[in-house]
Amino acid sequence: MSEATRPHLLVVGGGFAGLWATRALARAPLRITLLDRSNHHLFQPLLYQVATAGLSAPDIAAPLRHILRRQRNVEVRLGEAGSIDAARRRVTLADGGVLDFDYLLLATGATHAYFGNDQWAAHAPGLKSLDDALDLRRKLLLAFERAEACTDPAERAAWLNFAIVGGGPTGVELAGTLAEIARHTLRGEFRNIDPASARVRLLEAGPRVLASFPEALSVRARRQLERLGVDVSTGVPVTAIDGGGYRLGEDYVPARTVVWAAGVAASPLARSLGVPLDRAGRVPVEADLGVPGHPHVFVAGDLAAVKRSDGGQVPGVAPAAKQMGRHVAASIRARMQGTPSTAFRYRDFGNLATIGRLAAVVDLHGFKLSGLLAWWFWLAAHVFFLIGFRNRLVVLLNWAWAYWSYQRAARIILGSGDEGRAPAAGSDRPADTGPP
Amino acid sequence: MSEATRPHLLVVGGGFAGLWATRALARAPLRITLLDRSNHHLFQPLLYQVATAGLSAPDIAAPLRHILRRQRNVEVRLGEAGSIDAARRRVTLADGGVLDFDYLLLATGATHAYFGNDQWAAHAPGLKSLDDALDLRRKLLLAFERAEACTDPAERAAWLNFAIVGGGPTGVELAGTLAEIARHTLRGEFRNIDPASARVRLLEAGPRVLASFPEALSVRARRQLERLGVDVSTGVPVTAIDGGGYRLGEDYVPARTVVWAAGVAASPLARSLGVPLDRAGRVPVEADLGVPGHPHVFVAGDLAAVKRSDGGQVPGVAPAAKQMGRHVAASIRARMQGTPSTAFRYRDFGNLATIGRLAAVVDLHGFKLSGLLAWWFWLAAHVFFLIGFRNRLVVLLNWAWAYWSYQRAARIILGSGDEGRAPAAGSDRPADTGPP
Repeated sequence: MSEATRPHLLVVGGGFAGLWATRALARAPLRITLLDRSNHHLFQPLLYQVATAGLSAPDIAAPLRHILRRQRNVEVRLGEAGSIDAARRRVTLADGGVLDFDYLLLATGATHAYFGNDQWAAHAPGLKSLDDALDLRRKLLLAFERAEACTDPAERAAWLNFAIVGGGPTGVELAGTLAEIARHTLRGEFRNIDPASARVRLLEAGPRVLASFPEALSVRARRQLERLGVDVSTGVPVTAIDGGGYRLGEDYVPARTVVWAAGVAASPLARSLGVPLDRAGRVPVEADLGVPGHPHVFVAGDLAAVKRSDGGQVPGVAPAAKQMGRHVAASIRARMQGTPSTAFRYRDFGNLATIGRLAAVVDLHGFKLSGLLAWWFWLAAHVFFLIGFRNRLVVLLNWAWAYWSYQRAARIILGSGDEGRAPAAGSDRPADTGPP
Repeated sequence: MSEATRPHLLVVGGGFAGLWATRALARAPLRITLLDRSNHHLFQPLLYQVATAGLSAPDIAAPLRHILRRQRNVEVRLGEAGSIDAARRRVTLADGGVLDFDYLLLATGATHAYFGNDQWAAHAPGLKSLDDALDLRRKLLLAFERAEACTDPAERAAWLNFAIVGGGPTGVELAGTLAEIARHTLRGEFRNIDPASARVRLLEAGPRVLASFPEALSVRARRQLERLGVDVSTGVPVTAIDGGGYRLGEDYVPARTVVWAAGVAASPLARSLGVPLDRAGRVPVEADLGVPGHPHVFVAGDLAAVKRSDGGQVPGVAPAAKQMGRHVAASIRARMQGTPSTAFRYRDFGNLATIGRLAAVVDLHGFKLSGLLAWWFWLAAHVFFLIGFRNRLVVLLNWAWAYWSYQRAARIILGSGDEGRAPAAGSDRPADTGPP
């Protein structure tokens, strides 16, 4: 089969699902286009480290072109998909370009969801991309600067009030690390405030943090968080967020820095598929991860709603996305060969979450770990799965440095948060300039 | 003397001059406020490495608070000075705040100068801050992406045409490194273009590159640049720059990426001092670096116009800024003690510039080096002067990595350059979306 007549697979999204599918098809007689709006694959499990100034953005990202440079059947394309015409096998790009396909893999993941309160987005940014992480880093570091420069005690207290909404893994990681920054990293660096007096609150509406873990580990995680200085609130929902603070149940708390880690929804691109979506906007796929009624279209990763054999949902975690990506590759090979495709089975290796300095929880099918040992396990797993030898080395070096010196290497405010400079386009956070 | 009654020194700018003056006054009976619009001190000599994706932003910057945390007579303040009232000893901030002083050190450095062609700024960005470097990195990396996605041969050629205006050290560093990226780093990663076909031109209006070096080293630098694949043009001025290209003498060259490394002018803050400035906007200072008529106001670094003993200007380089900073500290101590201040004398240790992969030129008062040996000398000097042990280690590691693998660790496009996303506020570069 000549190069030009090979069927064309379009992969939208270079995250774990899209990239793993692409790599699994290295020897398939296909032309593959991998489309992503970023030029890099991102190791999302460590994104909170960029937000909390422990790592630089390039430490946890690798250019997609570089990862795939030797896979000659792939062309990497920088761009954003705008809409899908599944019947005509065509994707229209945001810039007006058009890409035709024979097979399509949609793997655009998830984005923040504010559960119908989209106005909160301006005051409580979330964490999905490197740009989100750098914005959040600026916001966190600037809050201490504003508190230092401020003379009104009430306003100062509001600048030193931090709230993380959502007690899942991301919320727990952010809260633990932020408490460590306030208590240790910034010690002695300010003259008008004591950074350790900052209040870091983790707000979980449900009954416990890390709800996807066994209850015993939730209890231990909460205890570890409290030991780090985090004020954990469970069972009370956040009912309002504005530029001046948030409402927890009935109480209004003045706070200039609120971070959203409470919910995600599937990427809106799926809506243009024209098939029914689940409540979170995900695509309920068939057993082989194909889209019902569109046998040449597949969905993988956080965008796919997939049932486990025990009836639950496959979780939105990196190992699941990688497994789905590889399974889509097998399904496409089966379609091309006219053989029956097989059903996806999620292999659950366990669940881990880090909490902060030398603290984590690990659940390996009933084998539970917490504290220092869990943290070492977590570290090893994350460094092992990072793409690129150099990244592994640099991340290890940064961690060794952070844990020896209590310093965080990337405490550099970038972008347009400085006084007297224009805010970034699309940023309408009044928190940077004062209450609304 | 009690803390509150100590005289107050306001230092504006945390670059080499401001930071070195502040540190030299650690034991002086002063209250010091160090005001900077960034939260970090920047090692500017390596800024081009961030722009060319060799280093991460935090690798060459350190938080000012952290550097000065143990110096108890200093308060670091994030903010931007708006104007100076030297007679009333008062600085008004851009956000409306006011800082009174007994002594003032102005060390706000220089910014890009377009010699009366400010409309070029939108099309030919310069390199002074970390944000500039990340903008430039995005622009350089996106040009190759646009060329890859483009089907029109003329437009593709324009995306692969790079011009660096100005043959001083920054222009030479940028041109050499960009040629290396095109020829080596990106090799094999594109499917529709050969990155090595990119044309990197260095445009110097004067008769030779590196005009501040002896002529023999200029010749060698040019030869080394050409060996790296840079097309060097001297003696012809750039007469126009727009979003579609530039005019060199009479010829219009279509080029989507033009970088400005041709000139700097002093920071505009000096204008509000109310004293005569030189043509580049610098403050001609007295022998002790005091401002004529304002014995309590000093200027140091790139903002100061200082004569050398041989009649020439003290150059705008890091060693000169550090020396001036320390001298201002001595002058302030003399003022406080009522003793006569001494005249500043610039100690010129030599001049070095790097060109690219293992190539540099070094001039140590007639002792000239070029090529590999000069590069090792340049590397040692730069790593030695970086602030922070961790930064030195990480920069060395990154360099070892880059020279072993030809890879550049930070090839990550950050910020708002992605297709379908809004451009950053204040950015009106049409080059990212096409010709105007």
